[in-house]
Amino acid sequence: MILIKDITVLPFDGKDKVIAKTDVLIKGDRIEKIGKIDEKADRLIDGNGKVLMPGIVNAHTHIAMSLLRNYADDMPLHEWLNDAIWPIEGKMNAEDIYWGSMLTIAEMILSGTTTFLDMYDFMEETAKAVDQAGVRGVLTYGSIERPERTEKNIEKYRNFFKECDGMADGRVRVMIAPHAPYTCSDSYILRLKDLADELRTGINIHVSETQKEFDDSMTEYGKTPVQRLKDIGLFDTHTVAAHCVYLTDEDIDIIKEKNVYPVNNPTSNLKLASGFAPIKKMLAKGIPVALGTDGSSSNNNVNMFEEIHLAAILNKAVDKDATSVSAYEALKMATINGAKALGLDKEIGSIEVGKKADLILIDVDKPHFTPLNNVVSAIAYSAQGSDVDTVIVDGKLLMENRELKTIDIEDVMKNTNRIVEDLISRK
Amino acid sequence: MILIKDITVLPFDGKDKVIAKTDVLIKGDRIEKIGKIDEKADRLIDGNGKVLMPGIVNAHTHIAMSLLRNYADDMPLHEWLNDAIWPIEGKMNAEDIYWGSMLTIAEMILSGTTTFLDMYDFMEETAKAVDQAGVRGVLTYGSIERPERTEKNIEKYRNFFKECDGMADGRVRVMIAPHAPYTCSDSYILRLKDLADELRTGINIHVSETQKEFDDSMTEYGKTPVQRLKDIGLFDTHTVAAHCVYLTDEDIDIIKEKNVYPVNNPTSNLKLASGFAPIKKMLAKGIPVALGTDGSSSNNNVNMFEEIHLAAILNKAVDKDATSVSAYEALKMATINGAKALGLDKEIGSIEVGKKADLILIDVDKPHFTPLNNVVSAIAYSAQGSDVDTVIVDGKLLMENRELKTIDIEDVMKNTNRIVEDLISRK
Repeated sequence: MILIKDITVLPFDGKDKVIAKTDVLIKGDRIEKIGKIDEKADRLIDGNGKVLMPGIVNAHTHIAMSLLRNYADDMPLHEWLNDAIWPIEGKMNAEDIYWGSMLTIAEMILSGTTTFLDMYDFMEETAKAVDQAGVRGVLTYGSIERPERTEKNIEKYRNFFKECDGMADGRVRVMIAPHAPYTCSDSYILRLKDLADELRTGINIHVSETQKEFDDSMTEYGKTPVQRLKDIGLFDTHTVAAHCVYLTDEDIDIIKEKNVYPVNNPTSNLKLASGFAPIKKMLAKGIPVALGTDGSSSNNNVNMFEEIHLAAILNKAVDKDATSVSAYEALKMATINGAKALGLDKEIGSIEVGKKADLILIDVDKPHFTPLNNVVSAIAYSAQGSDVDTVIVDGKLLMENRELKTIDIEDVMKNTNRIVEDLISRK
Repeated sequence: MILIKDITVLPFDGKDKVIAKTDVLIKGDRIEKIGKIDEKADRLIDGNGKVLMPGIVNAHTHIAMSLLRNYADDMPLHEWLNDAIWPIEGKMNAEDIYWGSMLTIAEMILSGTTTFLDMYDFMEETAKAVDQAGVRGVLTYGSIERPERTEKNIEKYRNFFKECDGMADGRVRVMIAPHAPYTCSDSYILRLKDLADELRTGINIHVSETQKEFDDSMTEYGKTPVQRLKDIGLFDTHTVAAHCVYLTDEDIDIIKEKNVYPVNNPTSNLKLASGFAPIKKMLAKGIPVALGTDGSSSNNNVNMFEEIHLAAILNKAVDKDATSVSAYEALKMATINGAKALGLDKEIGSIEVGKKADLILIDVDKPHFTPLNNVVSAIAYSAQGSDVDTVIVDGKLLMENRELKTIDIEDVMKNTNRIVEDLISRK
């Protein structure tokens, strides 16, 4: 049992915005009680000068891409993928992915992210890292169609699901991921949808990330990417749609009607010159937009507090409306909306009795939070990833006073540096 | 003497982008030597795992506005100024400004800023704080025209200049600041220009921040704000022009021709829904755009690493060009270009023998800098303010291993909280 005393809580429970000075009791992996608590606990955490919020959910990333951090920058998306990223990714092996995953999981814990939706390769290695580090991950093999490999791929994804879905006390979940409409044919996407349906899981896909993708889709199919995916029936399955930068009003109606879960990736959309997603329009329709960092190669970190900050300010200028996306909406994107996208909102994403104890404590006793005129604004606009002091997942402490409890970070960094040196020169 | 051994240097000296593993010797307030150094020094700093760069220059801020941090958010600029900010600012007194200044100077040191250009009120208090804290500040009274006070104001600014310019071993400099074209008449701006010329100093002014300001100027004067200021002759005096969001191509030509120093304020321009400044066009003409946070009420902090990050990524999406503003250009904005804007580039803004020892060490031995494939990208895209480990100004250590040396931060935060509680209820 862990008892957190005298803490300010941002619960995202659909009721209170802020609960001032309360106590939170954790029993096993669950939140047992919120309110004045006199019980004794094995472990007491003083909440004075701190804010408690749900662990952050990063709803779109490729965590092992940290291996390519700062490796190729200031290039347009398609050139960046074709000339820089894909050639070196083609050389990666299982060991690379393990260390790249472990490195990024450490970075996530250090900046308050407890759950992530990943799309990459050698995902068994990422599952192992999630298990060992104690975080929560929804993992997907990113699948670019190569017709000769279709049957083998389907078998690989099915095996991965059977082997890893539910492992690590349920902290690992598995979905199916056609990479993008422009790298997969209709029939291939439908094969993967059928697999997801067979396994009773969801879909993770990039959608309408660039003007080029949108224009090419109109030329080739006479439809927007969203319209095309709807027409083939993909959206009858739970779908997380990363980026969603180029959307018509009809696309937004489809997203609403079919309960598609769009993910806002503001840093990546800026850095790769992709554009500005119509977040205000989606929020106005009640679509629970989630938030993600994308991979560390297009960001170049997985610090969700940068994304929260940017999500709250960027669309204000885009829409010429200083109320376009509020501080509170940006924080919802990073918590409860992310949990919805991942199909985990019954378990995580808010601080409520009975939910999993996935929680972070932010140290607000610092100059850049002073004076603390408004806690919601302070967390959205002033907080840094490094202000996260303590991280709890499934009721277990993964970081305390900024000290990682489950990861030997020196060893991880040493191994990552070794791997990358080898990878760049590898034939 | 301070000797920094085995450090990677980003000098911004117009020659090398990066100097790998070298030594830097500081003698008194100056950089004495760069290269392999065998001399003994009183103080040895191990540069392994760290990057040395010039202290950051925040070229547009209102530091005591930290008192209003998170006080009024998600409002459009003119409403925010008229209904929220100006009424409470009208109640501020000298003591408020002293503590607000001290708080923000602490925040600046903690995030690597060593020099700032400020515009606010009770500036003698800010000068005192700069003196005590050991940083460098160019200070200006922000002047909104009230015709009945013109003579008194001129006298006040002249006295402030005479009292404070050059104080604290030259770390305090003073300029003159008509607030903005829309709050000052031509004749008032010219009175202030004459004063600046009399004192042989420069001008600090907000220019073309919003569409409304631009449109109103066209209606009232038949000219853009930039054209109007040029026509009255303001730009014959060294002028720092904050924001510069709405510029015609002719305005950009004027800025180039008249050596006006524009300041990019990306966070504030987004948060207040002002818009996107044409940074790429200005850089293409060789204009040394500087960078600033604006006040903490429209940001809500003074963390220049957020601005560097945003400056490097934002215009890529605006211009649909992933090479629009490079990582290196963004870092130049925050260093040498800022020094130029403040008229201090002979003394600061780059790491060169003979220049002032205003330096920061960034700890890159962390997961989010691993692997360190490219130092320039790493600092621009991955660095956080909290990665700044050590800060040196005028050859003196202001922070070492993140411990502030010149400021009692607990005392400053206590006093700030006391001040703000009183200020909000003050009649």
